[in-house]
Amino acid sequence: MERRLRIDLAYDGTAYAGWQLQSGPKTVQGVVEEALARLNGERAVRVRSAGRTDSGAHARGQVADCEIATRLDDDAVAQALDRMLPEDVRPRRVLTVPAFFHARHDARSKTYRYLVDTSAHGDPWLARFALPWPQDLHLPAVDAALAALPGRGDWSAFTGAACEMEDRVRTVTEARRELVAPQLHAFLFTADGFLTHMVRNLVGTLLEIGRGKSDPARIAEILASGDRRLAGPTAPAKGLCLMRVVYDDAVGGASGGDPALW
Amino acid sequence: MERRLRIDLAYDGTAYAGWQLQSGPKTVQGVVEEALARLNGERAVRVRSAGRTDSGAHARGQVADCEIATRLDDDAVAQALDRMLPEDVRPRRVLTVPAFFHARHDARSKTYRYLVDTSAHGDPWLARFALPWPQDLHLPAVDAALAALPGRGDWSAFTGAACEMEDRVRTVTEARRELVAPQLHAFLFTADGFLTHMVRNLVGTLLEIGRGKSDPARIAEILASGDRRLAGPTAPAKGLCLMRVVYDDAVGGASGGDPALW
Repeated sequence: MERRLRIDLAYDGTAYAGWQLQSGPKTVQGVVEEALARLNGERAVRVRSAGRTDSGAHARGQVADCEIATRLDDDAVAQALDRMLPEDVRPRRVLTVPAFFHARHDARSKTYRYLVDTSAHGDPWLARFALPWPQDLHLPAVDAALAALPGRGDWSAFTGAACEMEDRVRTVTEARRELVAPQLHAFLFTADGFLTHMVRNLVGTLLEIGRGKSDPARIAEILASGDRRLAGPTAPAKGLCLMRVVYDDAVGGASGGDPALW
Repeated sequence: MERRLRIDLAYDGTAYAGWQLQSGPKTVQGVVEEALARLNGERAVRVRSAGRTDSGAHARGQVADCEIATRLDDDAVAQALDRMLPEDVRPRRVLTVPAFFHARHDARSKTYRYLVDTSAHGDPWLARFALPWPQDLHLPAVDAALAALPGRGDWSAFTGAACEMEDRVRTVTEARRELVAPQLHAFLFTADGFLTHMVRNLVGTLLEIGRGKSDPARIAEILASGDRRLAGPTAPAKGLCLMRVVYDDAVGGASGGDPALW
């Protein structure tokens, strides 16, 4: 008897070529599908996810779904995944959901976080999870630029060349900076959806503003222009983490939810 | 002109066979001495440290000292170490100190922390820094046992067989547990000195008490017995971190000091 599972996941993406399955390099989707196939009588399982995280990017609140035939109950599936998945990919929760559930389409909003370590020589415990940025970061300018971002609009100026999405209108409901530990800044972005590299391009632009290379008011002009060439460089993937995906309570509510842990 | 430097360091010890120099495997002392030799006109530099951390153990407040002949000022030495040391070993501060300074002998106290992750499936971001412990941890029992520890005494019952220290009398001034993030417990120990494996053996004993295998009052009996066979197993090194070493203000005061970062 087949059923649909929602699987919440956390991972350190350092060793992976991103979420999405590829024929060559190791991907998170690949190791998850491999583990699930073993629970599905060795028949292939196709997994969908809320977000396709980039190569080297992380997740603390990724949500996946799949159809599977197993006699194990939800907790036993979580235990089995715990044993089969590597140390850097961990199940958080397994939940049987209605057959219509779709991890991406049903997501109300997603929150990405980007960590920037401004300490003089970098923190070795953060080497995999934060961008070292041992230089000026003018916080009032950064915060002013962030405040200009929330709203509905076309985010083409901040999307990657590889972005295949035709509709580039998204609603950003949160764009703010938080000091999560001494000299460790978290940039938080919540939206109903994100374009390819959108958060990394926003952070690259904000860091240029923070070092005084452009005016905070500039970010609204870049956004309005729709011109990618005007935005800053793409910040490295390692600072990026998918923190939280919000769903209706009927299908398990929000993922993630450990804001105390940077 | 030779001068003595105090060098505060932080490291992720996962890839190292501990602090202390060995002929074969990579050690933290080894990579630090190699970098310093390059600043010393390629003449060998001998580095002493406050604590000899175990293979796989970490530091956020290690303190080292050495004698060196360089025209670089302290900040320039820190910048040079920043460039020469690997990403998992970072300088925190470099300070010229009086010739008599000795990182180990002059330490007033040291604080070690041991992280225990009690989440059901482990946290991939903590895989290198915390012991996964997805089982019962009876906190009142653990805390009662911890409360019995501070004081001056012979800690032979908690030392490793390899401990070569003859005087095993130490004064423990702090032994407590703190919840630093949801389901993440930190065990903190401060003393004027520690014996080989002392913190790991204390944690191994506390975890046995926490799972109900022995009574909290038992820890005082084990301590009084001086018999290593009565204590619990040695907890794995990866949960252990040298957080802070206290010195007189005249030689730079305490190291570490980022308690907000777990």
